[in-house]
Amino acid sequence: MTAIGVFDSGIGGLTVLRALKQVLPEEPFIYLGDTARLPYGSKSPRTIRNYLHQNVAFLEGLGVKAVVVACNTASSVLDGEKVSGIPLYGVIEPGARAATAACPGGVVGVLATRATVASDAYRQALMRLNPEVQVVSQACPLLVPLVEEGWADDPVTEMVLQRYLAEPLHANVAALILGCTHYPVLKHVVQRLVGPHIQVIDSAQTTAQVVRDDLAAGRIPKSTNSGGIKVFTTDMSPAFRDLGARILAPYPIESWSLADL
Amino acid sequence: MTAIGVFDSGIGGLTVLRALKQVLPEEPFIYLGDTARLPYGSKSPRTIRNYLHQNVAFLEGLGVKAVVVACNTASSVLDGEKVSGIPLYGVIEPGARAATAACPGGVVGVLATRATVASDAYRQALMRLNPEVQVVSQACPLLVPLVEEGWADDPVTEMVLQRYLAEPLHANVAALILGCTHYPVLKHVVQRLVGPHIQVIDSAQTTAQVVRDDLAAGRIPKSTNSGGIKVFTTDMSPAFRDLGARILAPYPIESWSLADL
Repeated sequence: MTAIGVFDSGIGGLTVLRALKQVLPEEPFIYLGDTARLPYGSKSPRTIRNYLHQNVAFLEGLGVKAVVVACNTASSVLDGEKVSGIPLYGVIEPGARAATAACPGGVVGVLATRATVASDAYRQALMRLNPEVQVVSQACPLLVPLVEEGWADDPVTEMVLQRYLAEPLHANVAALILGCTHYPVLKHVVQRLVGPHIQVIDSAQTTAQVVRDDLAAGRIPKSTNSGGIKVFTTDMSPAFRDLGARILAPYPIESWSLADL
Repeated sequence: MTAIGVFDSGIGGLTVLRALKQVLPEEPFIYLGDTARLPYGSKSPRTIRNYLHQNVAFLEGLGVKAVVVACNTASSVLDGEKVSGIPLYGVIEPGARAATAACPGGVVGVLATRATVASDAYRQALMRLNPEVQVVSQACPLLVPLVEEGWADDPVTEMVLQRYLAEPLHANVAALILGCTHYPVLKHVVQRLVGPHIQVIDSAQTTAQVVRDDLAAGRIPKSTNSGGIKVFTTDMSPAFRDLGARILAPYPIESWSLADL
């Protein structure tokens, strides 16, 4: 009964784990939140690559059969990187595919961390799917701390979002990718601010579908018993445990342990 | 010609280095910004202690004669900790002393990171100086990212500060300690929001005076030639270099190198 591994720099990746659990209720999951070294979003590719290797090695040590890199910043350095013998899934490709499907001819907006924007990973993934696509990227360094402060529904967050959305709206985007796994928590606010005609894409769901398809096709062995969720973090902070449980609800956390990385 | 070492989780501690350079222009300084692992403010005491030891060891390896822990979160775990044979200076004690001097009988407010507030270090330092003191602490997790976004003078920052200042103002504080080395960048906004009757204390200056007194008293050997500033960071990010140079101005940075911690 080997689990599927999922990791993120913090607890934001639990939005992806929740989407995975929704489509794969039988599967056991092991989550690693690298909370001692978060955020990844302001760090260099060299450091992020280093963390990627360590995190995958930690999960492989626990015998996982696949790893979902539920972190856009870490997904942005996956390309061409030799990391592991087991299947690795990033969140950028599925998000790009959903955006291309939603607006075949239009402009695509991307909200992400500074590092993800600087990596140009979304633009490259979108261009591979449609060489004509226009991409408007906006770095949003304040959104993660706002989510972690628990201010998702707050006038301050709305004011910050209005600032970050000004350029994508001015460019008439037809689809808007939430390019950080913390951002799905803000999806309803973003959707309200941009209006119903812009499709707001959170890559958690699309990534979960890719993994489900690979299980169905036999590219990853299936589990048959009902599996639980084990969480490891590289640091213990009560605030993160509360927020983590809120994000994962209604799925319970079987255990929460410290990972020494 | 051994230098004085200064470290912080990021570039905020450069406000302390700047204050040190102002009163000790002859001294050479080596600064370590642990940007790969910032922020410390949301991490556990165990992890922060671990980082403290590694950072001091790195600076000792470069031959420094003293270390200024220019980080409130790391200073909050200094007490009773066996770290090094050379003198170590935290920023909490000097800030507490300045606040006690400013308002001998009044209520003291402390703005700080979550970890510093949870450590109770300011309350304990203030109580040692005046057992009757009343302390109102406010965790302000959004202020560091706002400073790093370059939004010091911005309506969003003002709105966030008004939220964080509500409780200290309601408690009628007579002095307000800026308990994080990033916050001096916001000092003028805070002073404007709280009005002229509340003394806003930034511990950079008071810490610099303690170090200068120890040099004058011969507890640390003096340097006689004019010394420069060398900066090491554990990660390279262009945004931090720009902000770092702005904080340190008019003092130039002699070199900026990567520290592999």
